[in-house]
Amino acid sequence: MIKPEFLFSGFYFTSLNTKNNMIIEITLQELNTAQFIAGKVREIRAVVGEGMAINALSGGVDSSAVTMLGHQALGKQLRTLFIQNGLMREGEAEQVVALFREFDINVEVIDARKEFFNALRGVTDPEEKREAITQTFYKEVFGKIVRESGAKYLLQGTILTDVDETVAGIKRQHNVFEQLGIDPQKAFGYKIIEPLIQLRKDGVRTVGKALGLPPELFDRIPFPGPALSARVIGEVTPERIETVRKATVVVERLLENTGAFQYLAILHEDRVTGMRDGKRDFGQQIEVRCWDSKDARTAKPTNIPFEILEKLAEEIISEVPGIVSVTYNITTKPPSTIEAV
Amino acid sequence: MIKPEFLFSGFYFTSLNTKNNMIIEITLQELNTAQFIAGKVREIRAVVGEGMAINALSGGVDSSAVTMLGHQALGKQLRTLFIQNGLMREGEAEQVVALFREFDINVEVIDARKEFFNALRGVTDPEEKREAITQTFYKEVFGKIVRESGAKYLLQGTILTDVDETVAGIKRQHNVFEQLGIDPQKAFGYKIIEPLIQLRKDGVRTVGKALGLPPELFDRIPFPGPALSARVIGEVTPERIETVRKATVVVERLLENTGAFQYLAILHEDRVTGMRDGKRDFGQQIEVRCWDSKDARTAKPTNIPFEILEKLAEEIISEVPGIVSVTYNITTKPPSTIEAV
Repeated sequence: MIKPEFLFSGFYFTSLNTKNNMIIEITLQELNTAQFIAGKVREIRAVVGEGMAINALSGGVDSSAVTMLGHQALGKQLRTLFIQNGLMREGEAEQVVALFREFDINVEVIDARKEFFNALRGVTDPEEKREAITQTFYKEVFGKIVRESGAKYLLQGTILTDVDETVAGIKRQHNVFEQLGIDPQKAFGYKIIEPLIQLRKDGVRTVGKALGLPPELFDRIPFPGPALSARVIGEVTPERIETVRKATVVVERLLENTGAFQYLAILHEDRVTGMRDGKRDFGQQIEVRCWDSKDARTAKPTNIPFEILEKLAEEIISEVPGIVSVTYNITTKPPSTIEAV
Repeated sequence: MIKPEFLFSGFYFTSLNTKNNMIIEITLQELNTAQFIAGKVREIRAVVGEGMAINALSGGVDSSAVTMLGHQALGKQLRTLFIQNGLMREGEAEQVVALFREFDINVEVIDARKEFFNALRGVTDPEEKREAITQTFYKEVFGKIVRESGAKYLLQGTILTDVDETVAGIKRQHNVFEQLGIDPQKAFGYKIIEPLIQLRKDGVRTVGKALGLPPELFDRIPFPGPALSARVIGEVTPERIETVRKATVVVERLLENTGAFQYLAILHEDRVTGMRDGKRDFGQQIEVRCWDSKDARTAKPTNIPFEILEKLAEEIISEVPGIVSVTYNITTKPPSTIEAV
């Protein structure tokens, strides 16, 4: 039974997924992967029918699993976009496109670097940065494409943890359309399809694996929504993103075998005194964080061998222009957080 | 023989110390400590005669050795001042006063905190900070007292390395009087006495030990001239100095047994996201540096056991209000420098 307020908001669940308006969780133990995938493919087909659907792929495990499910269900009826916001890691767009090409899935890369950097110019407050990215993504870039595409169905990789983290479940869905610049009053025909909403991260990984996604994708370390802009303290500019991107290459290469939960490089805004060619040089600092954690709720800095720390500093100094100082974070979470911004 | 240009500039050497206007170095190997001390005491007495002399004591080994020599030579004819600039480490003024009281030497503590913090207000550039401190020390605080004291002799702890680091030796001496607000043209009677100028640090330590200075003083780790203001990135305020002072207490307590060349805490200006009582809190970061080095010209970060790093972070977080994140510097010098500012 579909409640009228769900239809009105464009929110779509089959009655299988909900009970008294509550989402029914499927735990990893309960998950029958083959049955889950077959069921979701049927549901998506039933909802979309002969229409057109669209989704945005970030390269994370959630949106990648949705892309696989959606294309199994809809084939060419699904347009998949990768929004190049200029804030991604080195080679990330190319890797995502190449990966899905192996499944005969075409990913359209939308170059929106100008829009994002324009929106971020002069913004230094972390919350305002996040907001600028969200607004640019929904209103200016993705929203525009959705409105112009004629697609009435939006596939999203929302998982149960995302719902937990939102104060009001229904309100969130209204917001998606408002953020896309679509008036909910007139938007009767728009529908959001969220095939992963009953799962948590472990379930999504299992489904992703069964869908054929390679281990480097479904096992990859967490990466924040605002991408590298969350790794820059102060203003986000193309130059500063390029600096932290280069440092990220070194950090990911040297720490991938630590077994750590997450590792990252942060570009500071503070300038510190350094020396170049015997002269004082007021340069920049990179902070490296590497976390041991089960669920990101609490975390401890990883006990990295000192030779690796020395190597990290040495390679960042030699490969990242403008850096004269590198630090390693030694605080627990709390009171620290995983990311700095 | 005293050259006329030395007299004119107020610069005083006995002929024993110079040869063709060059300062004759006394290496540690050549140093006959007892003979050196006796000779310097005689020289200072001969120069000052029945006059009054004055000196500023910072608590470092150079100015401490000069204070001991000066009082052996002059007794009550020497006034010794400790300028409390508000930038010193916890309990530093009290320790210095108590130490010299054991030798029956009275150290006058001059409270100049207001003058220094006024001069530092709004200043963020490191070079401008140093300049503000130098100007306040010489012109406003110490210079005023020297001019009003009637003392015509100034004892200074200059060592040979300081001279090496100054481009023009004679010019430097002119500058001292100019910085004190004393017109060299009219200042014929003013004299600077620098009993340690033929020595390097190792020689000063040996002399200091022979003069009865306790090991914690002559063996203490280097501390910069601008004191804790060199450990604050951005504006120096009483609150920010108090923050880095508290962190310094923890760092010095936990790292004093490492055998490291130097260790320090730096307060960053960048804010990072932290969590307090389950809420996001935009807090401050302390960077810890600990150096292995012979002569400070090159240095490597000390390989500190990970448990000590964890303890450092834990104690700084719990003892220093406002800190949510602690890092350990892993860069070599160069391209880093020992201090950050």
